[in-house]
Amino acid sequence: REVFEAARQRGLKLGSVNPTYFLSGFHRGSLISPEEKTRQRAIEQTQIAGRIAAELGQGVLSLWFPDGSLYPGQVELRHAYERMRDGLVESLRDVPPTVTVLLEYKLFEPGTYSTVIPDWGTAFLLARHVGRQAGVLVDLGHHPHGTNIEQIVAVLRSEGLPGGFHFNTRYAADDDQAVEPNPELARIFYELLLEEGSGIFPENWTFMLDQASSRENRIEAILHSIDSLQTALARACLVNRKILHQFQRQDDIIAATRFFNQALLQADVRPVLYQARSSRDLPLDPVMAYKASGYQTRIEARRV
Amino acid sequence: REVFEAARQRGLKLGSVNPTYFLSGFHRGSLISPEEKTRQRAIEQTQIAGRIAAELGQGVLSLWFPDGSLYPGQVELRHAYERMRDGLVESLRDVPPTVTVLLEYKLFEPGTYSTVIPDWGTAFLLARHVGRQAGVLVDLGHHPHGTNIEQIVAVLRSEGLPGGFHFNTRYAADDDQAVEPNPELARIFYELLLEEGSGIFPENWTFMLDQASSRENRIEAILHSIDSLQTALARACLVNRKILHQFQRQDDIIAATRFFNQALLQADVRPVLYQARSSRDLPLDPVMAYKASGYQTRIEARRV
Amino acid sequence: REVFEAARQRGLKLGSVNPTYFLSGFHRGSLISPEEKTRQRAIEQTQIAGRIAAELGQGVLSLWFPDGSLYPGQVELRHAYERMRDGLVESLRDVPPTVTVLLEYKLFEPGTYSTVIPDWGTAFLLARHVGRQAGVLVDLGHHPHGTNIEQIVAVLRSEGLPGGFHFNTRYAADDDQAVEPNPELARIFYELLLEEGSGIFPENWTFMLDQASSRENRIEAILHSIDSLQTALARACLVNRKILHQFQRQDDIIAATRFFNQALLQADVRPVLYQARSSRDLPLDPVMAYKASGYQTRIEARRV
Amino acid sequence: REVFEAARQRGLKLGSVNPTYFLSGFHRGSLISPEEKTRQRAIEQTQIAGRIAAELGQGVLSLWFPDGSLYPGQVELRHAYERMRDGLVESLRDVPPTVTVLLEYKLFEPGTYSTVIPDWGTAFLLARHVGRQAGVLVDLGHHPHGTNIEQIVAVLRSEGLPGGFHFNTRYAADDDQAVEPNPELARIFYELLLEEGSGIFPENWTFMLDQASSRENRIEAILHSIDSLQTALARACLVNRKILHQFQRQDDIIAATRFFNQALLQADVRPVLYQARSSRDLPLDPVMAYKASGYQTRIEARRV
Repeated sequence: REVFEAARQRGLKLGSVNPTYFLSGFHRGSLISPEEKTRQRAIEQTQIAGRIAAELGQGVLSLWFPDGSLYPGQVELRHAYERMRDGLVESLRDVPPTVTVLLEYKLFEPGTYSTVIPDWGTAFLLARHVGRQAGVLVDLGHHPHGTNIEQIVAVLRSEGLPGGFHFNTRYAADDDQAVEPNPELARIFYELLLEEGSGIFPENWTFMLDQASSRENRIEAILHSIDSLQTALARACLVNRKILHQFQRQDDIIAATRFFNQALLQADVRPVLYQARSSRDLPLDPVMAYKASGYQTRIEARRV
Repeated sequence: REVFEAARQRGLKLGSVNPTYFLSGFHRGSLISPEEKTRQRAIEQTQIAGRIAAELGQGVLSLWFPDGSLYPGQVELRHAYERMRDGLVESLRDVPPTVTVLLEYKLFEPGTYSTVIPDWGTAFLLARHVGRQAGVLVDLGHHPHGTNIEQIVAVLRSEGLPGGFHFNTRYAADDDQAVEPNPELARIFYELLLEEGSGIFPENWTFMLDQASSRENRIEAILHSIDSLQTALARACLVNRKILHQFQRQDDIIAATRFFNQALLQADVRPVLYQARSSRDLPLDPVMAYKASGYQTRIEARRV
Repeated sequence: REVFEAARQRGLKLGSVNPTYFLSGFHRGSLISPEEKTRQRAIEQTQIAGRIAAELGQGVLSLWFPDGSLYPGQVELRHAYERMRDGLVESLRDVPPTVTVLLEYKLFEPGTYSTVIPDWGTAFLLARHVGRQAGVLVDLGHHPHGTNIEQIVAVLRSEGLPGGFHFNTRYAADDDQAVEPNPELARIFYELLLEEGSGIFPENWTFMLDQASSRENRIEAILHSIDSLQTALARACLVNRKILHQFQRQDDIIAATRFFNQALLQADVRPVLYQARSSRDLPLDPVMAYKASGYQTRIEARRV
Repeated sequence: REVFEAARQRGLKLGSVNPTYFLSGFHRGSLISPEEKTRQRAIEQTQIAGRIAAELGQGVLSLWFPDGSLYPGQVELRHAYERMRDGLVESLRDVPPTVTVLLEYKLFEPGTYSTVIPDWGTAFLLARHVGRQAGVLVDLGHHPHGTNIEQIVAVLRSEGLPGGFHFNTRYAADDDQAVEPNPELARIFYELLLEEGSGIFPENWTFMLDQASSRENRIEAILHSIDSLQTALARACLVNRKILHQFQRQDDIIAATRFFNQALLQADVRPVLYQARSSRDLPLDPVMAYKASGYQTRIEARRV
């Protein structure tokens, strides 16, 4: 609590409150546990997290539940869904309306045969049961291969409920690697931008990094991610929608995709980023600046 | 219309009405077409199909739309969703309440980069926009590999909206092969059965075969599918839920899954099917009976 | 034959010879057919294609076989592999050594349960049975999602056997859409380039487009593909291997990937392409030039 | 060494020798490490493991290497393959010819962007470089979804090199759950059986369980796996190949697959297993017998 207060006084943005059920002894399941006691404990932990988010955080409660099963027959799938629904409704009934609740879906893990919230559809339905302040959290690594994630964002935007992102890059499963400035990421930002503006996001969306650096330098990996997100955003901002829509109306497919990809794939937006950084007296390349700073050497020396 | 009437008088079940947009010249898209004229024509075709379903069919209107895109930027994803939503609402506003509308989702095709209704979540949201009489059509070949389809069924059942199936087997993509009595199919039937009864399905679910026989004998393939569906149903009926739930409550994982799979994987239910057929004076093995009947030889001779 | 000769006299590159078994009545299988007669016919067709490739084409014989199965038990998997192996060896025994034989693999189709050459490993083994002049044909749409295709290229290059490409873009399955200048394509070109040179490919690799334009303008789609391939090649050429290898030796992961992606993701190589085209008096943007040429309008007018 | 000797004197089967590179400090890579020292240490560890397998084990050396990369550009893919090849050849040059070396492939992990041995094709090529005593280890969870694993087995059998299995069940990724008696497993056993015999496997194949029990009772999970493997084997033995081949020769697809699946999907083989166990004075259901034995209660009491 002191940490939170100190941070708030300094105006730091602390990010969302994320109750770590898995680490809190719920590795056998939380809201769908066959043990009433465990369910109650999970509900209470969620309620407390909601209060923390309201009082100490930025008003974002981000929920991921380690509920699922390893084998067919281990849980009754319909009961699991309904217990999750009822547990969520009960846990979040008294959360202050200033708090945005984001429900995270995940293709699998820790359940392998079934995971209670495996896709955006399930997260969406549960959010609707919770109420207007609840929405869907999209982690870029939580989909089957080949999923069109930007389309999910488009549907969520259209439906108007709150949304959020766990940004990272994946090639295999839920890799949680640092963000790369891939064209897919630029297309996601294109869907996030308010249509009439340039570079302005909807107010009810929250952005988070969710990455684990098992091998690479952790701080460099975060700086790299931020740089990649800025790159993708800059590319998304380059698309002139009026011209694009004209090609679309004419069903001029090759012209439309070439025009779209001129911004998202062809343009070099580093000059745009360099100018923005330069105007704020920031180093042009954050990773190179970090390397040059000697900070890494100093903290490593201190550790020994 | 005469065919329909004749069939109804004989009490034949004709299956759902399915407007074939793709074959009706909508290969460039229907409800999301950039051409207002095309959109209107698709709306009218859907309205007519609704009337046919009400007056001539069994009151089931099953809808699949060939709308999507091949390249990023070809369509505005959010507009596509909203045009689909608005087109559906307009098309189905005046469908008689006796008609059940089922919206089919499909991972891809004919769109490869984007398909407007790619997953059950999108179909669900659109069904809710249409209203209470609309639901979701599950085709067993329309999911990413590894999707837990029985869990989707469990969620749809829990939410109470109408549902339906296109039964088939797939190993690769949307193969549309004849149904095989795989354990997955038995698990799907387990989720479909009303909990208190045995062998009774919810009234608002519709079952269809959707298979294409490119190589194998078409009639044998259909008889094989029916046999497989009956096998899966018989297996699902063998699960004693009381005992299963006891194992689940005790979190006795291996016992629960073994008990579940005794019915779904281990038991030989052919005797059950044979007895049921025998009591109706039907042949024990429908495919063998068809082969023995000489019907195939006769129709082939007639064709020449 | 006349067409071929005329083309050769003009020095045109005609591409590979590809016997279309599927269209030649082998839709029930070719080299693995249970009918000896069909197998023999497939062997003969392959032998003839080999002669055509030697005498009339550029010496490239590209083979794809419609052999597989739809259901478990339909074929004996081991026999299928051995029949394919023996049929290939027999078919290609007398192909002149000037002909390069490329074996195409495909995840599925027309077989859905099994396809006899489903992956590069099987194609590789079969090529080795055929002999030194045989190699592997990589179609970018013939892999499971998430496959690292550039790594397959690296292994094939290392093993030194002939190779080839069917270039296209896919988002869903075997989409055969026009090529897009995605980072993956640039990484593939990076693996293809001879290490010591810049922009030079191994002599025993063959490049083909394999795309179907179902909706978009066919000629524009091909021009777009060529432009995308040139873009990817230009990006691959920008990587300075000496500097990259230095980062790799230092295990400086973030620096290495950022340096690599500066070329493959960040740089705008259009100026490079424009200069190359300008120096050959070619239009800067081939698609725009085609649109401006009025050729499409003229051929459409002629068709009516 | 004492443990090994004691075990050998008692005639216990100890399974394969598997050097745990990942746990031995090679989490940054082993044979492809940029550090010469690390590469040498990995080579030595492999050489020692080979000697242990020859002198103390059953002559099976099973190798999995934690080599790969997280980001494009982190390693040179071709160098990685060649270092792996050269390191293997050097490590295994002096392994006694009585030792079978099995190379394990894995779709991903710990590398997410690239894994040096990601598929059976790469493992096969590397095994050939090592020599006749080396083969391929198939882990059931190490493939992309939709892979026809029984076909891989058929090809490996046909090529005659040694092979092995890590048995487990997966629904999501590399789940390592206990083995279930799925039809796929029975089809794999069907490919493994020597064609002329019944229930006899090729001598150069090795079978292992590779499963992790994170939630369920560990001993029950192993007994369940053994039971499932016996079930699958019994099913595979039920297929009468003569009759099946007759249907295949006639291209009678539905009859062939129905006949095949009568054994693999429909038959209840528990009586066969019960009789075999009964004749050896073993309990009919190993899991139930374990539960009834009270062993679990005793060891848990002892732990406290």
